[in-house]
Parts: sequence; C-alpha cells; structure tokens
Amino acid sequence: MNTNEPQSPRSVGIVQTLYAELFTDGASALTLDCGASLAPVRIAYETYGQLNSDKSNAILICHALSGNAHAAGRHQEEDRKAGWWDNYIGPGKPFDTEKFFVICSNNLGGCDGTTGPSSLNPATGRPFGLQFPMITIGDMARLQKALIDSLGIPQLLAVAGGSMGGMIALQWAMDYPDAMRAALVIASTPRLSAQNIAFNAVARQAIMVDPHFNGGDYYGDGVPRPVNGLALARMVAHITYLSEKGLHEKFGRQLQDRRELSFGFERDFAVESYLHYQGSSFVKKFDANTYLYITKAMDYFDPFPDPETTAKRLQKVTARLLVVSFDTDWRFDTSRSKELVKMLNWHQKNVTFEQFRSIHGHDAFLIDDPLYMESLSSFLKRLLMETRHPSARVEW
Amino acid sequence: MNTNEPQSPRSVGIVQTLYAELFTDGASALTLDCGASLAPVRIAYETYGQLNSDKSNAILICHALSGNAHAAGRHQEEDRKAGWWDNYIGPGKPFDTEKFFVICSNNLGGCDGTTGPSSLNPATGRPFGLQFPMITIGDMARLQKALIDSLGIPQLLAVAGGSMGGMIALQWAMDYPDAMRAALVIASTPRLSAQNIAFNAVARQAIMVDPHFNGGDYYGDGVPRPVNGLALARMVAHITYLSEKGLHEKFGRQLQDRRELSFGFERDFAVESYLHYQGSSFVKKFDANTYLYITKAMDYFDPFPDPETTAKRLQKVTARLLVVSFDTDWRFDTSRSKELVKMLNWHQKNVTFEQFRSIHGHDAFLIDDPLYMESLSSFLKRLLMETRHPSARVEW
Repeated sequence: MNTNEPQSPRSVGIVQTLYAELFTDGASALTLDCGASLAPVRIAYETYGQLNSDKSNAILICHALSGNAHAAGRHQEEDRKAGWWDNYIGPGKPFDTEKFFVICSNNLGGCDGTTGPSSLNPATGRPFGLQFPMITIGDMARLQKALIDSLGIPQLLAVAGGSMGGMIALQWAMDYPDAMRAALVIASTPRLSAQNIAFNAVARQAIMVDPHFNGGDYYGDGVPRPVNGLALARMVAHITYLSEKGLHEKFGRQLQDRRELSFGFERDFAVESYLHYQGSSFVKKFDANTYLYITKAMDYFDPFPDPETTAKRLQKVTARLLVVSFDTDWRFDTSRSKELVKMLNWHQKNVTFEQFRSIHGHDAFLIDDPLYMESLSSFLKRLLMETRHPSARVEW
Repeated sequence: MNTNEPQSPRSVGIVQTLYAELFTDGASALTLDCGASLAPVRIAYETYGQLNSDKSNAILICHALSGNAHAAGRHQEEDRKAGWWDNYIGPGKPFDTEKFFVICSNNLGGCDGTTGPSSLNPATGRPFGLQFPMITIGDMARLQKALIDSLGIPQLLAVAGGSMGGMIALQWAMDYPDAMRAALVIASTPRLSAQNIAFNAVARQAIMVDPHFNGGDYYGDGVPRPVNGLALARMVAHITYLSEKGLHEKFGRQLQDRRELSFGFERDFAVESYLHYQGSSFVKKFDANTYLYITKAMDYFDPFPDPETTAKRLQKVTARLLVVSFDTDWRFDTSRSKELVKMLNWHQKNVTFEQFRSIHGHDAFLIDDPLYMESLSSFLKRLLMETRHPSARVEW
C-alpha cells in the first residue's frame, strides 16, 4: 500500500482545515511592516498528531509560494492527491505524528482560507484586490505567532519550511527566540538574488498586462480572471523549480503525441505540454493578486543587509538551526545556504548544514529522498530527546 | 577615440544595408525543409572590407535570434549605436576588414529586410503572418548560400556566428562543405535542451495570449501589435542571456530611483527597471511573428539525433572548426560545446575548442574580451596564411 493512501498506517488519514478568527475584539490588530494593520484576520490551518500534556511537541510547518494549510492527509477518501508534504508528515515519517503535533497554516496574503487580497475588505465590503496592504515575510511570521498563541502553545519545538517557508522559519528564529527551540531552513536563501527578483518581475508583469487583470479588481461571478497571465507566471517559475538535468532526464527532446515535428505552432515537445499543463492547472486553484503580493514579499526579504543589522538580528537567535540545500537547486543554490550558515557560524549559533544530491532542483525539498528524510528525522528526534532529557544537550 | 566611433580608424565607418532579390525568375524557388517553397525571396545584407581578386577572403557572419544584417559601422554619423558586432568587425579587429571581406545578412524569417512573416505574401497581397511557412536553421543557411552564389563567391573563407548564429555556421559546415574553409561556432549548442525549449515555449505563449496577437494578423497602420507579449518574451529570454553573477555584480539588490522600498507594485529594484527597459525597447524594433518562427527553428535544430545520422552528417564536413564557449553561459553552457567537440573529434574533424572566462553569461560572445578576441584573430589569420601558403597547412 502506498504510504500516502489515507488507509495506510503511515498516513495521517482524513483531515480537515480549521479556521481561527484573530484580532476580532475591535481593539487589537495585526500590525504590518508597511505601517498598515489588519483586523480581523482569518487564518486557515491544519493539525496532525496530538499536542502532549506539557505542550512541548508542536512543530509549525511553513509553506512556500503556492502551498496552503493542507500539508498532509486527505480531506476526503476520494481525493486524488494528499497534502503537499504528505510524504514527510505522518506516523513514522520525519515529522512523525506519533511524536509531534504538527501545525501548518496558510500564509498571510494567501488564497486558501487565510486573509489575503481576495478576502472581503471590511472597509468596503468588497474584495481587497490591490487595496490589500503590502505584506512581508515578517508579517507572515507575526500572524503565525498569533495563531500559536491562540492555540495556547508557549513554545514550539520547531519551525520548519522549504523555499519561502524556510525564510519564514528563519524569520521566526530572529523574531520569536523564546517561542521556539529549532528552525529547519530548507532549500532557502537569506535573500533573493537579482536573478530571482528578475524572474519575479516577469511573473508580475505577465499578470498585470493580462487584460482581465483590471487593476486587481477581477473578483465576482462571471468576471473573467487574468488566467493567461497567471499561467504564464507559473510556467516561468516552474522552469526555475526544476534542474536542467531533471528536465532533460524526464523529457529530453521527446515529442508529445506525435512522431514527427508539426512544422506548425502546435506543442511539439513533451516539455512544452508539461509546462502548459502546469500553468493551466495552477490557475484553477490560485489567485493572481496573491501571486503579486507573495512574490513581492519574497523580493523584500533581506534580514542581513549589512554586518551591523546582521549582528543585531542574529544576537537574539537561540534556536538550533538545520540548514538544508540540494545540489541541483539553481533557484536558491547551495551557495545561498552556505552564506546563511557562514553568518550563523560567525555569530556562534548552533547550526547544522547538509547538502543533498538530487536531480529534482529546487523541488527536491518536496520529494522523497531517504538521506534527506533521515536527516530531518534525526534532527527532530534529537531535539525531542533533549527536551525530555536536558542532560543529553551536551551530546549535540 | 572609441574604436567604434565612425571616425575611428578601427571602424568600418558609414555603411548601408543592401538588398538582393532572389528566386525572381518565376521558375526557381527557395525550397524549405517543411516541404513548402518561397519565391521571390528578398535578403538584406551588409558587407565590410573588399573582396580580393581570387575571392578567397570572404567571411559570412550569422546573427542570433534578435540580430540583423547591420553587424558593423553606422548607417548615419549620428547613429547612437554601431552594428551589433562592431567591436569584432573592422580594421585591426578579429574580423579584420583590411584582410577580409565580411558579409552579414538578415536571417530568413527575420524582420529587418529579409523575407519573413511581416513580408507581403505574393499569393494574397497581404503580410504573411502565420501563413508564413515554418522555417529551419537549414533553410536559413540555404538562403544565405543563394546570396553567396549571387555574389559570385565560390568558397567562403569562413562562416561564423554566436548562439543561433553558431547553429547556422554548423549547418553550413554540414550542408556546403565545398563552399567554405572554416566554421566558427561560438556560445552555441548542437541542440536545445528541454529547459531551452521550455523557455521558448513560455516566450511564444506570452505572444500568443496577447489579445493584440490576433492569430498573427496584426499588421497595418493603427492596428495594435502584441507588444506586451513580445516584451514579456524578451524579458524572460534576457534573464537567460546574463549570468547570475553578472546580474548580481551589475544590480545586486540595488533600488531604482528610491532610497526605501515602495511597499507597492512599483519597480523597487534596479534589475526590474532594467528588464522592463529591455522588453519595451525590444518591441520597437522586432516583430512578434518573427520571434515565434525563429524560436521554433531553434527548437527544431537537432542535426545529431542518433549515431548513424551524426556519422552521415559529419562525414561530409571538411571545414576546420573553432568552437568557443564561456564559463558563465547557462543558456548554452560549456558542456554543450564540449558535446559538439566530442562528436567532431570522434569523427576525426579538425576542431579547436576554447572556453573563456567571462562574467557576461551567454552575452559574452558579443562583449569585448582580449583573450577571446585574440583567439578569433589568430584562428582567422592562420586560415588566411594557409590559404596563401598551402605548405603552412602542416603547422596547424
């Protein structure tokens, strides 16, 4: 039996998304880095496993650009796909739900249950669209912290995430040192490069020049959405998620449903069909405005712009850190993880770094790999052991 | 004085584009690989230097995707920019116009004087648009061969090109062995990878979903053109022309015309502004349909699909080959040039390979570099010496 079938003993089974309504008292609000504030704020989340009696076994999972709160299990028996990190979350898996209480929430600005640009703006009664305030990785962490507080968990065992999720985990380590014991920063980077920003700029441009974008005001029944622009944005991004070698091995120059070149503008090559499929399936589940806001939040992430700020930010960090990279990831390549590790080491933080070989490029963090799995497992088990037997600490 | 000022003794000075009307006799036609044929065909070209009495000093320069016939000099004194390879063509430069007669023509399917999708279709009296037949790298070489024949040149000293121009030079070596002595294949590849095809697919999709694309029928006064789609295509492609390191050194995370983040959807970063500028300036001079046809021709280029075909194709090659790559080129990286060199060596062809260090990525082939220049110079000088003193041949 496939371990991510809901009947499998290694699956978390049937799960449901929960919603927390925060900042509803009319007095408090989520203060944002841009100076604006939001209230109330809704946050979608899921939990897997059981919180133990001393509330010391909670792990927060942070998703990447296009993820959501549904990280593991299925909502219904008949769901074709399990949650986005199902192979890593469940009984006996690295985020072992027999040991840990795993929480995953949809990021602020998202489009899958958490307040974002497609939510109703209480001031107007209409969807925010581009009236939604600009958000940052810090704001995303701040909302998650409010959720964790509302769940009555004083300290997380760990905050973990891949890609942008890794940025959020790093942000947590800087902002909420007392509220966590460890951070897992996977396939991530301390800042976007000029090339990363360039790709994001193309994606946003594709959305904003779509004639159905309409300044971000495209919600409502029967209103056409900027699906062409969003699909293009996804197609470009998707190329950067895969390694050249991976694309070569999967597709090479193989033709799609034909034996000869078309000598026309049909999609001759399998890789073209694949990419178009990625684009067109993405637009069914994702909001174009969210894409704009989230890519901008990534562009802005830059906690270590100079040595003074770095020192100030890292001074507060008490979490153990596990930094993981993959050799064929060219979106956030290993040198970016090493740069982070170097800063952490320089500031005498407790950091472990591992690079894994994979053909899957940036996407490797989502894909089954025994060595990578084992690394996450042992890091987390050790963390749990130390929590239970503080004397084990010296052995790290 | 800058060597590419028209007054400089190292500039070819003021030049003009010439036009040859070929296949005008009503009987002959340019036969294409897709099975269609074109007649008449116009080809735009420029020449620099003098053809010698025995017509043995002619070099054909092949341009890349977005180039044109204007490779060197200026059309008018006041032109802000010289031809696209001006730093490599002129008195004392690698393509030394005191020694060589240099020819550069606009590729078939182009939009700068040579017959292409924006040309009038004689059958309808209207621009071809997508009625233009699909063309290949082989077809481009075939038209150039017809031009060289019409100029009365029995054998070229060399055919040279960078990027797609290198593919055309390689095609010449396979198709017209008796009509050339050498091929210079620079920053090129024997075939596009799945990733290259994927980027081209995104570019074509951007153009084809532009509401002004109108099935390729957008010519005529006052008719809006698919400029947003074409600009997007160029923006994506432009990222692949530069190295990550080059982008980092040039732009890093530098802000554009501001000291603080905008917290809005303006272009915060210099790299964004630069990319938008590249897109918007490109659409002023380039035709979207040409972009579709040329990217497809590149996708299709695959002269060595299997060992048998490779052997058959390379058997005919008699040209000396110079293959050049650049270490930070990730569009067509060094391994692709090495793959070509390996095949050439295996088939006992006379090939020289050099990789140069550069921060400029794929664009390096266009940019001043003393070592790369010296390599082209000495290869060409040696070739000329051998032509004049056949006994020098053994020294190669």
